[in-house]
Amino acid sequence: MYYIGIDLGGTNIAAGLVSAQGEILYSASIPTNKERPASEIIEDMAELAKRIVSESGHELSEILAVGIGCPGSVDKKNGVVVYSNNIVMHNVPMAAEFRQHLDLPVFLENDANAAALGEYAAYGEGVDSFVFMTLGTGVGGGIILNGKVWSGFNGAGAEIGHQTLVFGGEPCTCGRKGCLEAYASVTALIRQTEEAMAAHPESSMHAWAAEKGRVTGRTAFECAKAGDAVATEVRDRYIEYVAEGICSIVNVLQPEILSIGGGISREGDTLLDPIKAYFAVNDYNKHMKKTDIRIAGLFGDAGIVGAAMTAVAGMEG
Amino acid sequence: MYYIGIDLGGTNIAAGLVSAQGEILYSASIPTNKERPASEIIEDMAELAKRIVSESGHELSEILAVGIGCPGSVDKKNGVVVYSNNIVMHNVPMAAEFRQHLDLPVFLENDANAAALGEYAAYGEGVDSFVFMTLGTGVGGGIILNGKVWSGFNGAGAEIGHQTLVFGGEPCTCGRKGCLEAYASVTALIRQTEEAMAAHPESSMHAWAAEKGRVTGRTAFECAKAGDAVATEVRDRYIEYVAEGICSIVNVLQPEILSIGGGISREGDTLLDPIKAYFAVNDYNKHMKKTDIRIAGLFGDAGIVGAAMTAVAGMEG
Repeated sequence: MYYIGIDLGGTNIAAGLVSAQGEILYSASIPTNKERPASEIIEDMAELAKRIVSESGHELSEILAVGIGCPGSVDKKNGVVVYSNNIVMHNVPMAAEFRQHLDLPVFLENDANAAALGEYAAYGEGVDSFVFMTLGTGVGGGIILNGKVWSGFNGAGAEIGHQTLVFGGEPCTCGRKGCLEAYASVTALIRQTEEAMAAHPESSMHAWAAEKGRVTGRTAFECAKAGDAVATEVRDRYIEYVAEGICSIVNVLQPEILSIGGGISREGDTLLDPIKAYFAVNDYNKHMKKTDIRIAGLFGDAGIVGAAMTAVAGMEG
Repeated sequence: MYYIGIDLGGTNIAAGLVSAQGEILYSASIPTNKERPASEIIEDMAELAKRIVSESGHELSEILAVGIGCPGSVDKKNGVVVYSNNIVMHNVPMAAEFRQHLDLPVFLENDANAAALGEYAAYGEGVDSFVFMTLGTGVGGGIILNGKVWSGFNGAGAEIGHQTLVFGGEPCTCGRKGCLEAYASVTALIRQTEEAMAAHPESSMHAWAAEKGRVTGRTAFECAKAGDAVATEVRDRYIEYVAEGICSIVNVLQPEILSIGGGISREGDTLLDPIKAYFAVNDYNKHMKKTDIRIAGLFGDAGIVGAAMTAVAGMEG
């Protein structure tokens, strides 16, 4: 028997036929066209689910349940998207609407939590606690404790990008100042890079940006690798922000694994090694076994796998 | 049937005969004399346990188990104090040694986690998640999720005072800079008060401190109440630090209740009202039910009750 995992993103809807162990057997995606009514998006999600089952040569009767990872605040118990800002939704009974098109058990999860569950399914075997932190446009994440998503009594938790890093610091998208997200997101890294470039017309980052047409999250990392001193300073300071945020998370949760995903995680050991070094010195815990900090592995597939794992967990009650 | 809860502190050992519901029937305390060998302290703990049973008119046969809340890092599974700095202990097999004097099932817990469990037993009925935050010499706490202590895969978690508040800020006892503890502890409040006094010789806080013989955590609160502008500024800024720390904790965990204990919590609504106002504006969660922020109620008894509840949880497996 199989599960369908659907990752509802602002740009694409991705769906996969997934085994109970989290292996994707077949997947496909379609554009979200997020400006249209939610009911149309939901109908397309159901059609995509049917399509991947038939294209993969399987039968709907082999599907036990559907999991959907979607942005925003989710009432998991009732299958309702309470509020989403990215794809605008307000009290949308997504599970019930989906079942009008494809009548299978449907389980919802916030997309970041679902991605955490996906990474956990793939890389967290035998581990009781797992934090997934994404360094992307924002800083998001998910928390798995005792093998289950922890997102608070209200489902609104695991906003690990919205811990304070600098009291009264840079404005954050959430309305507060100085959140980790305002220093450790790709958006923040681009801002830090641009500020350094403005102060240092001699930096090779100007030529890099001119060639690529813009400053990106890779500008500082690549120019640092090529030996640019200003870029190195930007990169190292950025990594320190990330590492400091990780220390705060670990001091509170002490997860067995903390996995770093999102665009910046593709830098691999360039990112990971200094984070580990910083953590070794700054972690509060000096006497017990330490959290294993890793780079995530599933990348774009985490959402599909995690949505399917949400369905697996939902069926187990 | 009853439980014995023992709160092993740096100054006193307090023990209580406690019901399964967390009610203290009888309690007593003795000095810790923490400079002596751990084996002597443990023997005294067992003698105190026997004494409170007999003094309360009960029999040892009515006691199901003993719980001990002790400072430092605890290996709960094996009943070993791995490391404690306050009362110096290194790999002390506390449960086994205790049983040599009083042969009952013995369960260990870190003292802050035990206190959280005590507050939860007293004030968390029907609630699935509960964070206890103490504003004392340091900033400590405990996390209860799904009715159980969460202290990480290694037992070293719930160090909620060691989240960053100010990147690169004031030095913290943990070796990092800018932790919440370095701004929101009583120690920090005294430092903030003294700094403001040095800058403002006209403040009435000088007369207050002269009268009491020293600056304390109450100086700014009391002089602010009497109308001193400098004291008001110190108090309000201090409360903002605490509130900002609470926002960070809640954004990650979204507990149903967050309970504030420790010395400063005796300020009651003077502390709580502005925290609630700050939280209402700054909490990331804008669409789901909100965390209920409260002042703790058990004060000194939280340790005894929580230690007993550790025994209750231990017997339930």
